[in-house]
Order: sequence, then structure tokens, then C-alpha cells
Amino acid sequence: MIEVFTWATPNGHKVHVMLEECDLPYRAIPVNIGAGDQFKPEFLAISPNNKIPAITDPHGPDGKPISLFESGAILVYLASKTGMFLPRTDRERFEVLQWLMFQMGSVGPMLGQAHHFRMYAPEKIPYAIDRYSNEARRIYSVIDKRLAQSRFLGGKDYSIADIATFPWLRSWQNQGITLSDYPHLQEWFNAIDARPAVQRGVKVLAELRKPVRDEKEREILFGKTQYERR
Amino acid sequence: MIEVFTWATPNGHKVHVMLEECDLPYRAIPVNIGAGDQFKPEFLAISPNNKIPAITDPHGPDGKPISLFESGAILVYLASKTGMFLPRTDRERFEVLQWLMFQMGSVGPMLGQAHHFRMYAPEKIPYAIDRYSNEARRIYSVIDKRLAQSRFLGGKDYSIADIATFPWLRSWQNQGITLSDYPHLQEWFNAIDARPAVQRGVKVLAELRKPVRDEKEREILFGKTQYERR
Repeated sequence: MIEVFTWATPNGHKVHVMLEECDLPYRAIPVNIGAGDQFKPEFLAISPNNKIPAITDPHGPDGKPISLFESGAILVYLASKTGMFLPRTDRERFEVLQWLMFQMGSVGPMLGQAHHFRMYAPEKIPYAIDRYSNEARRIYSVIDKRLAQSRFLGGKDYSIADIATFPWLRSWQNQGITLSDYPHLQEWFNAIDARPAVQRGVKVLAELRKPVRDEKEREILFGKTQYERR
Repeated sequence: MIEVFTWATPNGHKVHVMLEECDLPYRAIPVNIGAGDQFKPEFLAISPNNKIPAITDPHGPDGKPISLFESGAILVYLASKTGMFLPRTDRERFEVLQWLMFQMGSVGPMLGQAHHFRMYAPEKIPYAIDRYSNEARRIYSVIDKRLAQSRFLGGKDYSIADIATFPWLRSWQNQGITLSDYPHLQEWFNAIDARPAVQRGVKVLAELRKPVRDEKEREILFGKTQYERR
């Protein structure tokens, strides 16, 4: 059975939703990033960037076990394994891949910075809050324009580009966004939100996650623990 | 001939280096991002996220013209087109793909934020400078550890994971990094820096790029121009 080393965050949700959509049996193993589980040697061995999610699959492409980190790579792997949510023709596949890369390079990192400076940073820094709230609006606008022309992000069919992007937009309120300002995005959002597999995926391990509470947890997530390891 | 709509930045360099490494004929068309060329309708038509690089190829995978945006997707496309710098077996290909995704999701976005707060932001904000300088150190450490175990980022051979990552590390001084703190990374860096195709790639359009000079350019790059379009 596939094992997912994960936590109930947007990058975790991506893989949980994909596994549910593909109806693949899996086991979700919590990596409590607020307690520092991501720095344990056994996790770093499969996820050297100390980020969730990572997976192990006892039946890799050559029949032998494989492990993978980076949610974007895991989505492509699971799509390749199942033949689902990534088109077969090169032209359509690259259309999806560019929107997946847009999620990996802009949607995730920049909305993550918006969360940080709006919600978690110990001081309110107007320049940084403005920078990332504005970038959030820019990104929502890019997506809204795309969805005015295309039913889904990667083309006419639901794909790993949508599966990767949706979990990041669920926290729109924390990003300073008014969803109704983006009508095409909102329609797409509601359609994806209604999918049973999505509803199951975003609940995986959700009961374990709590808001950042104390200085110790803040230190682990944002402080020296992150970079003072050798 | 392939046309690259581009500028002499790390994300541009990735594609210039790849085209040089593959010995593909191409034409580099400057998109002056300091002057706002990235918001022209003809560019947005092929790059809806208003970022360089984007490419057009008159001979796509089905023989018809294709356009692509997002440097990560373009690298996979060119590797697929030429059979170069991306292994053929699934196992080795996914090993490269996860390190490419690490570049797309962490190396590029986070070192980009380090550049912003250390070099370009109109005020010096200690919290943000520390946050991204520390994240730069964390990322260099992840890469150094990987390269202690593996000759190249994606495995035993030079691949699009290296081609994607190298251009971002060329600006290590602007990220507050001392390269000699990371000996395995430094050895890899010097080997890649010495490749003739890399030396040609990083010079493409370099004569056109100048440091950010005035308020108008700063406004275009970081201000309302970025997000107030409808």
C-alpha cells in the first residue's frame, strides 16, 4: 500500500485529494511539522528538503519500491501510475504541465508568504503584507482570466493542475481575497469543492492540525531549527 | 526555429542554457520586464502569468505550432523533444523531476524573495531580510547534502534539475551566502559554470539588462502595475 508522510496543509491536501480521486489504497502517516517531525532522519531520508508530503510506493514503475518528495512530482507520478488526470497526448499534457508549474512556482510559494505575513509573523510589517496580498490578487486574477476561457486550468478536463491549485485557494480569506471578485474562479472553486474525493481528501488528518500556538512551535516552523542543522 | 520570449534573469537563463546544451537553433526575443513588456497583449497570449520565459515552437509534438510558459514546463518539453537531460527510465526520470520541482517550489521563489528584500525593497526590513537569508542558507544546505551523495542533483547524470538550479545560485552573493560553506555544492557549481553551453546561455541578452534604476521601473516590477489590470 502507498504510504503518505504528510500533514493537513495545502501541499498535503494535494496528494490526499489525488489519491482519493484515483481511488488508490493508501495510509496517511502524520508528520507533525509543528513538533519538528520533519527533521527526523527517517523522514529526511525520503524528503531531504524537510517538507511534507513524501510518499513510498512498494510497487514503483519497475516493480520495486520507490520514494518521492515534492507534491508536484508526486502528482505527476500518481497520474502516470494510474493514467488519470493527465492527458495522454503530448500537446494536452504540456498544457496541464505548465499550469502545474505555475502552481508550484507562484500559487504555492506566494500565497504561503501571504499566510506568513498576514497570520504568523510575530510583527505586522505593512510592506510585506501589502506585497504578498497584492501578489495574491494578481494570481487570482491570472486564474480567473484563464477560467474565463477554459473550463479547467489545464484545459477541458479536470487534471492535476486543478488538484494542485484548489487546496491553496481554500484559504482565500487568510490571503485577503474576496472570492466573488473572481466569478470564473469562484464557479470552478465551487465545482471542485463539491467533488466527493476532494471533500474526503481535505479531511485527511485534519483533526491533528491546530493553529500555531506557542513560541516553541513558531520557532520550529519559522526559526533557527529550520536552518541550523548540519 | 524556436522563439524564446525572455530576459537575462535566472528563469530566462534556464531556458537559454537548455537550448545551448541541446544545440537547438533558437531566436531570443527580449521582453523588457523593467519597461512593462510583460503586460503587452501579445506576450500575455502565450504567458498569461506575465512572467518570462515563454517559447513558441513551430514544430510541436504533433507537428503543429505550440507555445509554452513556465520555465520548468519548457525544460521538460525541450528534454522530451530532444531526448536529452531527462532519463528514459521512469525511476530515474522521477528522481530528476522531484529535484526540478524543488527548484520550482523552493529555490526560485525563496531566493527571489531574498533578492527582493536584500536588494530591491525600498525599505530595509530586518525580519524579512533574516527570514529569506536564513531560508537561502537552508536551501544551500539541502543541496550541499544531496551533492555529497550524488554527483548531480537528479542523479548520476547532468539533467534539467541542474540546468534549472544553477542560474539561481549564480547570485549567491546577493543572497548573503558564502559559497565555500558548501563544499559539495561549490564543486558542482564550478563544474557546471565551466560548461561551454552554460557560459553561452547566461550571456544571452545580458547586454540589455541593467540594475533597477528608477521609481518607474520599480513600480512596474513591484508596484500596482503588477496587479491592477483587468
